[in-house]
Amino acid sequence: MKTRRSDRLVDMTRYLLERPRTLVSLTHFAEEYESAKSSISEDLTILKRTFRERGIGLLETIPGAAGGARFTPYMTKADAKEFVDSLVNAIDDETRVLPGGYVYLSDILGQPWFLQRIGRLIATQYLREPIDAVMTAATKGVPVAQAVAEQLNVPFVIVRNDTKVTEGPTMSVNYVTGQSQRLEKLELSRRSLPMGSRVLIVDDFMKAGGTIRGMASLVKEFEGQVVGAAVVAEGRVEHRVIDEYTSLIHVDTNKDDGIINVTSGNYADEIYAKFEEELESK
Amino acid sequence: MKTRRSDRLVDMTRYLLERPRTLVSLTHFAEEYESAKSSISEDLTILKRTFRERGIGLLETIPGAAGGARFTPYMTKADAKEFVDSLVNAIDDETRVLPGGYVYLSDILGQPWFLQRIGRLIATQYLREPIDAVMTAATKGVPVAQAVAEQLNVPFVIVRNDTKVTEGPTMSVNYVTGQSQRLEKLELSRRSLPMGSRVLIVDDFMKAGGTIRGMASLVKEFEGQVVGAAVVAEGRVEHRVIDEYTSLIHVDTNKDDGIINVTSGNYADEIYAKFEEELESK
Repeated sequence: MKTRRSDRLVDMTRYLLERPRTLVSLTHFAEEYESAKSSISEDLTILKRTFRERGIGLLETIPGAAGGARFTPYMTKADAKEFVDSLVNAIDDETRVLPGGYVYLSDILGQPWFLQRIGRLIATQYLREPIDAVMTAATKGVPVAQAVAEQLNVPFVIVRNDTKVTEGPTMSVNYVTGQSQRLEKLELSRRSLPMGSRVLIVDDFMKAGGTIRGMASLVKEFEGQVVGAAVVAEGRVEHRVIDEYTSLIHVDTNKDDGIINVTSGNYADEIYAKFEEELESK
Repeated sequence: MKTRRSDRLVDMTRYLLERPRTLVSLTHFAEEYESAKSSISEDLTILKRTFRERGIGLLETIPGAAGGARFTPYMTKADAKEFVDSLVNAIDDETRVLPGGYVYLSDILGQPWFLQRIGRLIATQYLREPIDAVMTAATKGVPVAQAVAEQLNVPFVIVRNDTKVTEGPTMSVNYVTGQSQRLEKLELSRRSLPMGSRVLIVDDFMKAGGTIRGMASLVKEFEGQVVGAAVVAEGRVEHRVIDEYTSLIHVDTNKDDGIINVTSGNYADEIYAKFEEELESK
């Protein structure tokens, strides 16, 4: 039975939101709803307009019989500012300061609501770039990787300091930690990442950046390419061992008196500089 | 400016899908779209019908001035069967057998597409039950916990064998592992779980169930209540130390010759027995 337009709009929205960055053919929708492709095209025009006006994401439509639609979620600059401000407020709390200048973030990184927005904001930077996989270091980075991977609709891989027996054959690199200059090892299961992948590295917290540098050298062992590196929070350090990264917030702690100072990270420049017009306003 | 019905349908769908189990007031929608509540009510009727017909989830509408809408995602029995069959096919591969009778699942548990469906299927069992938090054990269970928590729209917490310095004060229990009868410790950050929470325990792989039993005793230390336990895969064991659990698949490996036998778990009985009519068909 032919499906009504109103029902199609609801179900197409759901279908596309569940499949970021995937080209869905007009034929698929036409068959699913037993409707003419011309009707489906009109539906897609409505979706495209609403997605743009509401700052939901980019809906690219390819016209013609072989055409289709591809949805790429993004976050507008205004929504990003509101979200990062809420993150700053949530974390700017002296009871979060832990020994060693670390900051308690586990509650934030255990809330689907925050994670979904963290993922969408980080993914926005790669709106026009193909990415094959997201990489992170166990264990605190895992929720961030999963959240970003969900928005990009690509697999995420977890590198570990201590590979469990359940991982199978691994590839490993040694790296020097950024601050304490210790020699550490990072391992990744051979079968978890295809050779030559374009990889986005993410983590929850970055101090000097040694772990990220270690992950980058692991990507090279897999003959891959590092597309970028993004962290939820960067700490204050004397010397950073990596140059290019995106951070949502900047955290400065004083371990002696437990004072914490939280501000926005560099995300506005890194993410929005190149999409100034496209994502400026709702 | 008053928003057209077609645009409202698209944006309301997106808005509700992003906020599972949350009551959204009619007033919110009426103000957002500058539309009469009677129009919003009509929109919700369309969403409700499409969500049901397409097996997307339950949309409960509470009429009247103080009313609203609450979306609870579920998976129909037919969709669940199709999905679990695809999971069985993906895992039924002798190269996945690892030493110790373990099975390589990291690639599956690193794919957003599988995780989203695992989360939705496990969440379906608790369609009518309030849950405050999802709990898992580091590190392989984390993606499963995040996926389930996202569908339930509640926080997830990660218990660890070795608490890092960045966790702050912790609560811990000792427990006996199910098979090897070793004494282990499980720890959870004090501030990550409110006392008295209703907790759903999840994990990637269960053998005898010792870790799940350990997590259950940790929930008791937090004066909470275990609502249920669900795992992606259960292995074959002589003796199980827990009675009630839900599994999506059952994996039987022979470590000597690497043979693997994968079948459906007990999910159909555990999840669908009580929703026979509601979720039987699309």
